[in-house]
Amino acid sequence: MATPYILALCGSLRSGGFNKKLLDLAVAEARSQGAEVDVVEPKSLGQLPLYDQDVEAKGWPPLVKELRDRLGRANGLLIASPEYNSSIPGGLKNLIDWVSRPPERLFQEKWAAVMGASPGVFGTARMQPHLRQVLAQVGVHVLPAQVHMPRAMEAFNADGSLKDEARRKEVAALVTTLVTRLKG
Amino acid sequence: MATPYILALCGSLRSGGFNKKLLDLAVAEARSQGAEVDVVEPKSLGQLPLYDQDVEAKGWPPLVKELRDRLGRANGLLIASPEYNSSIPGGLKNLIDWVSRPPERLFQEKWAAVMGASPGVFGTARMQPHLRQVLAQVGVHVLPAQVHMPRAMEAFNADGSLKDEARRKEVAALVTTLVTRLKG
Amino acid sequence: MATPYILALCGSLRSGGFNKKLLDLAVAEARSQGAEVDVVEPKSLGQLPLYDQDVEAKGWPPLVKELRDRLGRANGLLIASPEYNSSIPGGLKNLIDWVSRPPERLFQEKWAAVMGASPGVFGTARMQPHLRQVLAQVGVHVLPAQVHMPRAMEAFNADGSLKDEARRKEVAALVTTLVTRLKG
Amino acid sequence: MATPYILALCGSLRSGGFNKKLLDLAVAEARSQGAEVDVVEPKSLGQLPLYDQDVEAKGWPPLVKELRDRLGRANGLLIASPEYNSSIPGGLKNLIDWVSRPPERLFQEKWAAVMGASPGVFGTARMQPHLRQVLAQVGVHVLPAQVHMPRAMEAFNADGSLKDEARRKEVAALVTTLVTRLKG
Repeated sequence: MATPYILALCGSLRSGGFNKKLLDLAVAEARSQGAEVDVVEPKSLGQLPLYDQDVEAKGWPPLVKELRDRLGRANGLLIASPEYNSSIPGGLKNLIDWVSRPPERLFQEKWAAVMGASPGVFGTARMQPHLRQVLAQVGVHVLPAQVHMPRAMEAFNADGSLKDEARRKEVAALVTTLVTRLKG
Repeated sequence: MATPYILALCGSLRSGGFNKKLLDLAVAEARSQGAEVDVVEPKSLGQLPLYDQDVEAKGWPPLVKELRDRLGRANGLLIASPEYNSSIPGGLKNLIDWVSRPPERLFQEKWAAVMGASPGVFGTARMQPHLRQVLAQVGVHVLPAQVHMPRAMEAFNADGSLKDEARRKEVAALVTTLVTRLKG
Repeated sequence: MATPYILALCGSLRSGGFNKKLLDLAVAEARSQGAEVDVVEPKSLGQLPLYDQDVEAKGWPPLVKELRDRLGRANGLLIASPEYNSSIPGGLKNLIDWVSRPPERLFQEKWAAVMGASPGVFGTARMQPHLRQVLAQVGVHVLPAQVHMPRAMEAFNADGSLKDEARRKEVAALVTTLVTRLKG
Repeated sequence: MATPYILALCGSLRSGGFNKKLLDLAVAEARSQGAEVDVVEPKSLGQLPLYDQDVEAKGWPPLVKELRDRLGRANGLLIASPEYNSSIPGGLKNLIDWVSRPPERLFQEKWAAVMGASPGVFGTARMQPHLRQVLAQVGVHVLPAQVHMPRAMEAFNADGSLKDEARRKEVAALVTTLVTRLKG
């Protein structure tokens, strides 16, 4: 039986965004279930250079190296991301592009849980299929269960908890499924 | 009858990449048909900050402002992009994310031609549906015609021309369709 | 200046479904703007055989032939479809598969407006990207404008009109854009 | 440890198609590894009625009932499908639409391996993302590993075996992964 070790990623770079709040709830839940969770600070995604083969040829930029190492230690992924123009935010995609580069196949055989919050009514319904496709492409098992959080502006209490008990249970169930998988 | 004014974008940031070569051929063709073409230097995509609402709140970064202005002057788009992990490169998506932000709807009602070159056999067959969806989402008319260039390493002569005459005609036909549309 | 001639298709086969109601409103609007509209009876999609090359080899089944002829006369398409399992209903896809077969390229260069109604909150947000991709693949210009109708059970008055005036205007605007395009 | 019980589906309805040949190879491999495999005869997909809520309201058509029962007995899925117009064939999608209907959630928690053969160069590269999305939507764990068979007309020997040893190993590896998962 493996110890669950999860890398937590947020697709929105701003401070205090909905997706970071949603991710924080899921992270707390995962820790309460015995998982170790390494949360990538959203601003650090913004400090990554944009993927460029000429840059790569000079060696991994330090932050790329660091994030590759951190993913390498994890066996699970927890991702909360907004939807930009019906797809994956460029910043999150850029991280995946860097970390997926050979020689190691760092994403291979990891398990991922995907969530998304949006201010509108769709709750990232169009981003998630793209993100799931990209993750599968790099060898990740993405859990079929989906968490969509539409109208995110009204979803949270001032203390960061969710107003809607059904949604809270949905997040907890997704995390439970992930942690259970990782425990094998 | 409008004058065709095309912004040309490359999804690969490296110098001398296949997609830049492919774009250059399409740009030359468009100019030979009377279009004005503004080519965005690939490295400048890499100098864009990653989209972050906290950054946006302080005003457009200078390069974002410049690229918004350049798109604003165009009525057409010519894009050649690689496929990263079966989808849009983070750098190209990041540009679209910045330029699509309100208040102006800068992409709205523009026409776009999409091409893609890859070293493998699929020639960006999975990237293009994502890019087309994103462009439609921001209001662009994407031409249905598709140019896929698989095995890009063997596709070009030393002078940058295409070895395969059928492919050369395919690129020319796509550009002709775009320029004709823009002339109205 | 061409006369708009539109083939109207419904992705739901049942009688009195939401998408048929939505289509009927759009059809009435198109006719009020001078377009000729040929509405395919939803049940006739259900009478099509499933596409099978062995069946095709014996010649077009009569209903396939009829629908190919009807599409051949049109220069525009108006489609309202539900979302089944986050994608295109099999029945609508089957129709497209039959009608897209060579030798004629019957979809080529036609213009299409896509709408979708669903009982849930997403309003076909995941079906539409798939349908748009398929239509582009067969050469259709799909209008970027989108009409999503979530919570369709509560959307209509008893007389078939829409309760929400903003939605009514959205449908009318989509139809106006299509008819204007077809008039050239 | 569970006994692997696999339902095998072919997205092409014609007799002797490439995808049926590809499926047959995978089925033989699965059986050689101890799995029980129930192969759905391709023509039976063509005998299914197209999904229509009015038909469903009268009770499951006999063939729908039969296929629901057969899926209910399986814990794995093996699918080989062509690509029609860059997406899932209508016939295969129609089967999924019928079998995914409540009250039972028959696809839930099953594991699937997806393959695809095409006469062209893409080998179903655009169909597979759609099929994977649909299967995930109904609760299936789709293995990330992909088998694409382009230029299918030249791929098989007269006895149905594959000419290319690398491809043969790729199919065997996919089946091994599936069977191993099912054995838990």
